[in-house]
Amino acid sequence: MGKDFTKGAAWIRGQIVPVAEATIGVTDWALTHSDVAYDVVPVWEGAFFRLGDYLDRFVTSMHSCRMDVGLSRAEIEAALHAMVARSELREAYVAMVAARGTPIIPGSRDPRNCANHFYAWCVPYIHVVKPEVAEAGATLWLSDNTRRIPDDSVNPRAKNYHWGDFTQGLFEAKDRGFETVVLPDHAGNVTEGPGFNIFALKGDKVVTPDRGVLHGITRRTALELARAEGFRTEERALPVAELMEADEVFLSTSGGGIVPVARINERVFSNGRSGPVATRLRQSYFDLLRDPAHRTEIAYD
Amino acid sequence: MGKDFTKGAAWIRGQIVPVAEATIGVTDWALTHSDVAYDVVPVWEGAFFRLGDYLDRFVTSMHSCRMDVGLSRAEIEAALHAMVARSELREAYVAMVAARGTPIIPGSRDPRNCANHFYAWCVPYIHVVKPEVAEAGATLWLSDNTRRIPDDSVNPRAKNYHWGDFTQGLFEAKDRGFETVVLPDHAGNVTEGPGFNIFALKGDKVVTPDRGVLHGITRRTALELARAEGFRTEERALPVAELMEADEVFLSTSGGGIVPVARINERVFSNGRSGPVATRLRQSYFDLLRDPAHRTEIAYD
Repeated sequence: MGKDFTKGAAWIRGQIVPVAEATIGVTDWALTHSDVAYDVVPVWEGAFFRLGDYLDRFVTSMHSCRMDVGLSRAEIEAALHAMVARSELREAYVAMVAARGTPIIPGSRDPRNCANHFYAWCVPYIHVVKPEVAEAGATLWLSDNTRRIPDDSVNPRAKNYHWGDFTQGLFEAKDRGFETVVLPDHAGNVTEGPGFNIFALKGDKVVTPDRGVLHGITRRTALELARAEGFRTEERALPVAELMEADEVFLSTSGGGIVPVARINERVFSNGRSGPVATRLRQSYFDLLRDPAHRTEIAYD
Repeated sequence: MGKDFTKGAAWIRGQIVPVAEATIGVTDWALTHSDVAYDVVPVWEGAFFRLGDYLDRFVTSMHSCRMDVGLSRAEIEAALHAMVARSELREAYVAMVAARGTPIIPGSRDPRNCANHFYAWCVPYIHVVKPEVAEAGATLWLSDNTRRIPDDSVNPRAKNYHWGDFTQGLFEAKDRGFETVVLPDHAGNVTEGPGFNIFALKGDKVVTPDRGVLHGITRRTALELARAEGFRTEERALPVAELMEADEVFLSTSGGGIVPVARINERVFSNGRSGPVATRLRQSYFDLLRDPAHRTEIAYD
């Protein structure tokens, strides 16, 4: 019908439309209560990467938020396929969203009685950190006054849109000339940043925080790749002091893979460049994106 | 044009439309980062109540979130007037929203470079607690495992849509047969609930939390009304134990005024009915809604 899908597509209310036409109502609790479970899967060279892992996590998140969107996992997968095929995007950032909706009984304040609904959208692949910045080694601001929302307030393992702490941290980072931000928790441990997990490499050991963070699929991939390189990996509390004493620091994100870090606040790593191990892991991640074992090919027309 | 405004109206992108037609894009950071400053002002018997106070707080919230929606305070006020007049609602819940929007440079992750925008909507007056429940005395669940998002993670004094902790608490409350929920902080003090502040009355003293809560306009009204009744008022940390030892407990909300509480978990107040002082304050609030000193009349056609 001549629709323009170059900026992306959306699947919403059973229709596939250009992403700019996909909207939700201003009274939907998805917006007014940030009451959403979502997930993001990358598409690379015409295939979803680790699609089953992302769908598993999305379904788990919906259950933990007690949402029922009335679609099976297979129907959600089919919607994602049809949408990306229609967009013709071969490298894409694909979001799937379960929204609380609005109360079935007008005026109700009961989250159990809402019309939950599903939508999805895809846009050209997003790099959380631009490739040229990642290759040179990103600069990271470790906030000293904004703390990550604790896990007994909002569960970080169900991917969610509660980004107020990240947004505040991003303002602090950008004002100081840093690329992005990582937040500490209330006990002096490092947690995560807007869209990524963090890793500290020291000797033959790679450590990443376990509590108060999303258990990222790319985090999992990064741990697998590190072990394949012969490193021991540990998922546990990572004190700020230990992070600052690391040999190398890197980030993991579905939007760009492994990102070496060259600097955190005043601390310079690897002479202000990307570290050798992180650089290798970054390349290994992009190689893995091409591994048929992890790819679900999309049937474009 | 025969549009149906019985369910409410919205002012969006300079147009007044039925509320169901007011939508925002699924990629707007208002949704994907819950990056919104908002406020809600009640309309009662055809007039805004304490409109200046609500607009003051909204403008302060926008500044603290570093948003510029390109409208003056007077233009925002005019939009609210025109919208409510068009809706013909004489009792309304009126929301004004500043949204982060999307990056001006596609792919940017910098919150400083987004196209911020304003919209507003109104619906028939919302009672956060139904009047018949409020009059009988509401039941309140004090959560023992969900904590309010701390103020060094998200600033609660800029009214925001980060409700994940409240939603979790509401599920706990509803599952146990309670009307609504109030959350403790991480230090064992009481904070607030979904859409309301809380007060403990003991002897000649009324205490309400000061930190980690919205400084509600109805909270301010409740403190003024309590002082007019001869009570001393204190704004400070309110330990859970002190709340449970109160003579009376009540809530304040722009959606329903003063709400007496008859029970918190196993603790019954006022023999399971609304307390005498809270009942008087509730009536005083509805009387005050008619006080010309606080009213800004709406010019309906």
